[in-house]
Amino acid sequence: MLFFTPHLLIKLKTMTSPVSITPAFSGPDGLITAVAQDAATGAVLMVAHMNREAWDETLASGRVVYFSRARKRLWRKGEESGNVQNVKAVFVDCDADTVLLKVEQIGGAACHEGYPTCFFRQVTPDGVKVVAERVFNPQEVYKKG
Amino acid sequence: MLFFTPHLLIKLKTMTSPVSITPAFSGPDGLITAVAQDAATGAVLMVAHMNREAWDETLASGRVVYFSRARKRLWRKGEESGNVQNVKAVFVDCDADTVLLKVEQIGGAACHEGYPTCFFRQVTPDGVKVVAERVFNPQEVYKKG
Repeated sequence: MLFFTPHLLIKLKTMTSPVSITPAFSGPDGLITAVAQDAATGAVLMVAHMNREAWDETLASGRVVYFSRARKRLWRKGEESGNVQNVKAVFVDCDADTVLLKVEQIGGAACHEGYPTCFFRQVTPDGVKVVAERVFNPQEVYKKG
Repeated sequence: MLFFTPHLLIKLKTMTSPVSITPAFSGPDGLITAVAQDAATGAVLMVAHMNREAWDETLASGRVVYFSRARKRLWRKGEESGNVQNVKAVFVDCDADTVLLKVEQIGGAACHEGYPTCFFRQVTPDGVKVVAERVFNPQEVYKKG
């Protein structure tokens, strides 16, 4: 699905005098923060980062692409597990350094540990508790070799 | 409200062999990322950061405290506007470098620009559109002098 044609200078059409905004890739590492939220359930799935190339490809392809800080390369979410994220809606925050992506999470699990969300542990007065059920076994999905 | 007594070494009680986890304040800047989500509506309100002191005070007081990277000090959310965030639930992600806070947003607006959420601009094929209504006028709330 072509979400829309890639372009980074976007006109803020609803303001009196249109202005162009671009997510602020101007930070020291050239990255913005991206929050993925399940478009259907509202669950916050994960938080990761994007460089300009990842943002561009995400908008052009309609599939979420992050920039992996650990691997220092584009990370096409689901490239290994198949659990891709289809873009349903994109929002930019007031400072333009964070974006919110409403997505359709294929496979029902965003977390590499096999849970629907990366936020599967709740901090409670009695300690930290796992509050989600595993959808897949990471050892089966991420096979080595 | 005392959300719970402050302690940072939390036992992950539901795993076979209990482990202690602490959000990873070990990064270069000693900060973790914090996502605030409206506990009632599921709306993602904002993304900010916490140092260990902010995290500690948030858990102890039941009100969200961030660390402002711009001002380099604790930022008790709502300290100026009155729009505090009461903690309803706290989650830690798989890497323990991001936390999700489900909150009651007092005043109905998390954004310093007066909108319910900082993600009030949607990126669409036709450009960026403001998709929320202002709850307050920033010029009235943040008076100078």
